[in-house]
Amino acid sequence: MSTDPLPKTLPARYYTDPEIFRKEMERFYFGRWICAGRVHAIPNPGDYFLGEIAGESVIVLRAAPDAVRAFYNVCRHRGSQLCTEAQGALPGGRITCPYHAWSYGLDGALLNAPHAERPGFSRADYPLHAIHTEIWEGNIFLHFGSPQQSVAEMLAPLAGKFANWRMADLRPQRRIVYDVKANWKLIVLNYNECLHCPFVHPELNRLTDYLGADNEAPNPAYIGGVMSLSRGAETMSFDGSRHGRAWLPALTEEERGWIGFYTIYPNLLLAPHPDYLLTHTLWPKAPDRTGIVCELHFHPEEMAKPGFQAEDACGFWDLVNRQDWRVCELSQAGIGSRAYTPGPYTKREDLLRAFDLDVLAEVE
Amino acid sequence: MSTDPLPKTLPARYYTDPEIFRKEMERFYFGRWICAGRVHAIPNPGDYFLGEIAGESVIVLRAAPDAVRAFYNVCRHRGSQLCTEAQGALPGGRITCPYHAWSYGLDGALLNAPHAERPGFSRADYPLHAIHTEIWEGNIFLHFGSPQQSVAEMLAPLAGKFANWRMADLRPQRRIVYDVKANWKLIVLNYNECLHCPFVHPELNRLTDYLGADNEAPNPAYIGGVMSLSRGAETMSFDGSRHGRAWLPALTEEERGWIGFYTIYPNLLLAPHPDYLLTHTLWPKAPDRTGIVCELHFHPEEMAKPGFQAEDACGFWDLVNRQDWRVCELSQAGIGSRAYTPGPYTKREDLLRAFDLDVLAEVE
Amino acid sequence: MSTDPLPKTLPARYYTDPEIFRKEMERFYFGRWICAGRVHAIPNPGDYFLGEIAGESVIVLRAAPDAVRAFYNVCRHRGSQLCTEAQGALPGGRITCPYHAWSYGLDGALLNAPHAERPGFSRADYPLHAIHTEIWEGNIFLHFGSPQQSVAEMLAPLAGKFANWRMADLRPQRRIVYDVKANWKLIVLNYNECLHCPFVHPELNRLTDYLGADNEAPNPAYIGGVMSLSRGAETMSFDGSRHGRAWLPALTEEERGWIGFYTIYPNLLLAPHPDYLLTHTLWPKAPDRTGIVCELHFHPEEMAKPGFQAEDACGFWDLVNRQDWRVCELSQAGIGSRAYTPGPYTKREDLLRAFDLDVLAEVE
Repeated sequence: MSTDPLPKTLPARYYTDPEIFRKEMERFYFGRWICAGRVHAIPNPGDYFLGEIAGESVIVLRAAPDAVRAFYNVCRHRGSQLCTEAQGALPGGRITCPYHAWSYGLDGALLNAPHAERPGFSRADYPLHAIHTEIWEGNIFLHFGSPQQSVAEMLAPLAGKFANWRMADLRPQRRIVYDVKANWKLIVLNYNECLHCPFVHPELNRLTDYLGADNEAPNPAYIGGVMSLSRGAETMSFDGSRHGRAWLPALTEEERGWIGFYTIYPNLLLAPHPDYLLTHTLWPKAPDRTGIVCELHFHPEEMAKPGFQAEDACGFWDLVNRQDWRVCELSQAGIGSRAYTPGPYTKREDLLRAFDLDVLAEVE
Repeated sequence: MSTDPLPKTLPARYYTDPEIFRKEMERFYFGRWICAGRVHAIPNPGDYFLGEIAGESVIVLRAAPDAVRAFYNVCRHRGSQLCTEAQGALPGGRITCPYHAWSYGLDGALLNAPHAERPGFSRADYPLHAIHTEIWEGNIFLHFGSPQQSVAEMLAPLAGKFANWRMADLRPQRRIVYDVKANWKLIVLNYNECLHCPFVHPELNRLTDYLGADNEAPNPAYIGGVMSLSRGAETMSFDGSRHGRAWLPALTEEERGWIGFYTIYPNLLLAPHPDYLLTHTLWPKAPDRTGIVCELHFHPEEMAKPGFQAEDACGFWDLVNRQDWRVCELSQAGIGSRAYTPGPYTKREDLLRAFDLDVLAEVE
Repeated sequence: MSTDPLPKTLPARYYTDPEIFRKEMERFYFGRWICAGRVHAIPNPGDYFLGEIAGESVIVLRAAPDAVRAFYNVCRHRGSQLCTEAQGALPGGRITCPYHAWSYGLDGALLNAPHAERPGFSRADYPLHAIHTEIWEGNIFLHFGSPQQSVAEMLAPLAGKFANWRMADLRPQRRIVYDVKANWKLIVLNYNECLHCPFVHPELNRLTDYLGADNEAPNPAYIGGVMSLSRGAETMSFDGSRHGRAWLPALTEEERGWIGFYTIYPNLLLAPHPDYLLTHTLWPKAPDRTGIVCELHFHPEEMAKPGFQAEDACGFWDLVNRQDWRVCELSQAGIGSRAYTPGPYTKREDLLRAFDLDVLAEVE
C-alpha cells in the first residue's frame, strides 16, 4: 500500500493547524456523506435529534413514516436557531421558531410567517435550507453539498458483509455523548489498532487476542476488519457473557464468533457484535476537540423480553471508551510539542497509514 | 425610508466578524456619546461606578455636588487599574492606586507620587486620562474622543418629549446586570419590535397590544416610539397594577397611558413608564457578547412612603429581559451558520431596517 | 545605565502582543538557560517532576545518584505525552508510554518498542528528545538549544556571594503553585522594588525598611541586591522570629542580617534568608498568564529536629505572594487599556529599567 521504507505518522500540523482543520471539514465533512445517527432514534413523524459539526447545527427529523429529512437549524426570518434540545418531538408536527413563530412543515416548507405578507414576499421563497439525506442499513447519512454518488453505491463493497446483522432492525438501547480534547483523526487512528489493548484496556484484552485482528485491504470509502473472540467469550461485556441475550437471529456460526471494527469515512465507527451493534459517530468541533456519540443497538425481540438488560455491554463500552479518549488526549497534547516528529508505524498499524494517505489525498 | 423591494436583515459578518466589531466600537462607542448610567447612582462626592466597553474600564465619579467626571481606570505610574469594585465610595475623596499609592484628586490631578520626584518629573504631567462627560436629563454620557456636538444638541428632538417625566429627579431602585451571548445590535433589534411578544412574553403581552406601537420617523440620533397600555393595565408589572404607586407627578392624562421605547444611539434603551423609568445600557464585550445593565428608577417621594415596594415591576422586567436575551442568543447562534442568508423584514420591523441602515452608514 | 532624561515603563505591546511573547519565549526561554527547580526535589533515581513553558511539557528526572536529565514529554512512536502527574517516581526506573508501552531508560534510550521491529527500524533512532541540563548550587537549569556557555560561567559573579548558604545542601519543605493572570515580566518588575511594600505588604513591611534595599549594579545575567532586616527581626516570618530554627550554619554575622532578592534571568527568583532559601520559578503560559512555583528550602539538620516546623515562614510567603500577584494582575489589566502610556520610573525603580533594557536588547 505504501512504498515508504518505514511509514511514519503525519506531521503535527495535521492535528493542530486551524487552516488544515478548516480544509478537512470542507472536504471530509461538508463535501462527503457523513453519518448522523440511526433511523430508530426517530421512529415517529416529528421526532428529531440535533447534530453539530464544526459549529454547524443540523436538525434530523422523521418527516413521514418512510421519510427522514435534515435541515440547517436556522430560521429564514431573522436567523434564530429553531430547536435547542438535543432530541425530542416537534409539537403539532411543525418546526416553529421560538422568536416570531415562523413555522415550517416537516418537509421544510414555510407554512406561516405572521405579518410578513407584503409586496415582494412569498412564503415559497423561504423554505428551510435542506441537507441531502439517505438511509443505509438503518444509518442516516447527510450530504451538505451535491452528492455525486449514493451512499449505497459508495458502500457497495460492505453491503453483503453486514447483511446478517440486519442493522435496520436494531433499536437503540443506550446513547452516551463525550467531549474529547483530541483531533477527530486521532480517534480514528486509535480505533484501527489493538496494539494498545494490553496496556490501555485490561478488561477488553481478556476477550480478544490483540494480535488477532484480520484487517481488510483498504478501500476508498472505509477501512477496518474483524477480530475473533477469545475462547470462552461470547461477546464484548464485562465478563464476556451475553447475559441471556440471544445471538442476532440471522448470524452464521462463524459470524457469532467475531466483532467488526469498520471506519466508514469520515465519521462512522461501526462495530457489529454477535448480539448487538455498537456505533460511534464523530462530530469535530476544533482541531483539538471532537464530540463523540456512542450508541448500542439491540434486537427488538430481545429488548421486549422480561428482564432484558444490557448494562454489562453498555457499561463495558463506556469504560473502554474512556480509556481510549484518555490516550487520544495524551497524543493530542504531545503532538503539539516543538519536539514532536513523525514516528515509525509498526506492522500492526497498516490501517493507520492507509487512513493517513487518504487524509493527505483529500486535503493536499 | 428604504427603496428595497423587500428589506432584509444584514449579512452574518455584521454579527460575527471581529474586524467589523472593532470598527463599530471605534465609530459607535469610542467616537460618539455613549450612556454610562444615571447621576443618582453617585449622589455624593467620591461616589463612583465602573463601566467596561470592549475591555476598556472607565471610572465614573461625582467630583463635586454639581460635577460628574470620568477617567480611564489606569494609573499613570505603572499602569495598574485603580478601582476594582463595580461601585463604591472613594476613601478620603481620592483615587489611590493599590500598587504604589499614587493618589489623584476627584478632578484627576496627580496629588501624591511617593519618591517620584527627580529631574524631569512633574506631577502636572501625569493627571488621570480624562473622558468627556455630559449630563442629559439625569443620564450621564461619555465621549472618549473630541465631541463635535453636545448631547443636548444631539438629542434636541427628544427634549420636550420626556419633559414631564422629569427624569433628572428619579432615583434608582434596582440594578440588574446581565452577560448575554449575542451581538449588541441584536439587543437593539429585539428592543424595537413587539412582533415577538405573543410568543416570547406571555406576561407582557397581556398588558399591551403587540401591534399597537406607534413608531416615530427615524432620526440620526435615535429610533423608537410609544405603545399604549391595554384596557385595565396601569403600568408594566406582573398584574398591570401600580401597587399604590402614584403616577409620576407631572404627567398628562395621555402620558399616563403609554410606555416609551427609545434607543438613544448607540447604547441607551430608554423606556418611560407612567410610574417609573426603565433603562438599559449596553456594554459590548465581543462580536458575540454584550454586558447589559438594567435599572428601574422611581420618584423619591414615592420611595420615601412607608410600604413602598417595586418588586412587581422589577421582577417583571427581570423576567421579560431573560426571555429577550434567550431569543437574542438563539439569533446569534443561528446567524453564525453557513446556511444563514439575510431574511425578509416584515412591515412591523421598519425601525430595525432603519437601524441597520444607520449601522451601514457608520461602519462602511 | 540609561541616558533617558526620565526613564519610563515599556509600551503596552510588550505585555499584550502574542508575537512579542513568542519572540521572548524563543530568546529568553528556549534560547537560554532556565531554572527548572532544585535537585533535592528528586533525590532518588527515577524521581521526576514536570515543568511546562509556553505549552511545552518537560520531564526532569534523576537518572543516577549523580545525574539529572531532562526530556521532552513526548513519545517517539505516536507522540503521546509520557508522564501526566506533576511529580512522582517512575516505576521500574523506566519511562513507559501509557499508550503502547514503548519504554525508555532514564538516559532516554528506547529500550522496548513492542512489535515495532521491521526493516528500516532501529531502536537507536528513537531515543527521547533530550534537553541540556546543568546543576548550579543545587538548582537545575535546562537549555532547549545549544548552550554557548555553562551556567557556572554565566553566573560566575554570583558564585561567591551565596557560598555560605550552601544552597546545594538545602531541602524542600513546601511547594506552592500559582496561576497568575499577568505577563512574566510584571512578576520580575514587582520583585525588584519594595516601594509597594508599605501599601501592599503590611506584614512584610514591619520586618524590613522598604527604602533600605542595597541594589547591585546590573549584570547581563541577573539583577538584584539585598535588604536588611529591621531591628528585632530575625528572618521573614509572620512575627519576624525564626521559631527556634538555627541560622544556616556557615553564615557570617553580617549575612545573618539580610535577605537577598536576585532575579537570575530569565525565570529564577532567588531569595537567601538567614535560616532558609526562598525560590520562585516562572513558567510563562501566554502574554497575560504565568505559572509560578514557589518553594522554601531548609537545612536538613534543622528539619530532622523534633518539633521542626516552618509554617510561620511558608504561610507568610504564601500571603505575601498573593498580595503581589493581585497587583501584578491589576497592572496587566490596566496596561491593556487604550489610554495606557509608559509611565515614569522613580529613583527606586532603577533595577526595573535595567531589566526593561535587557528585554529590549534581547527581543528587538
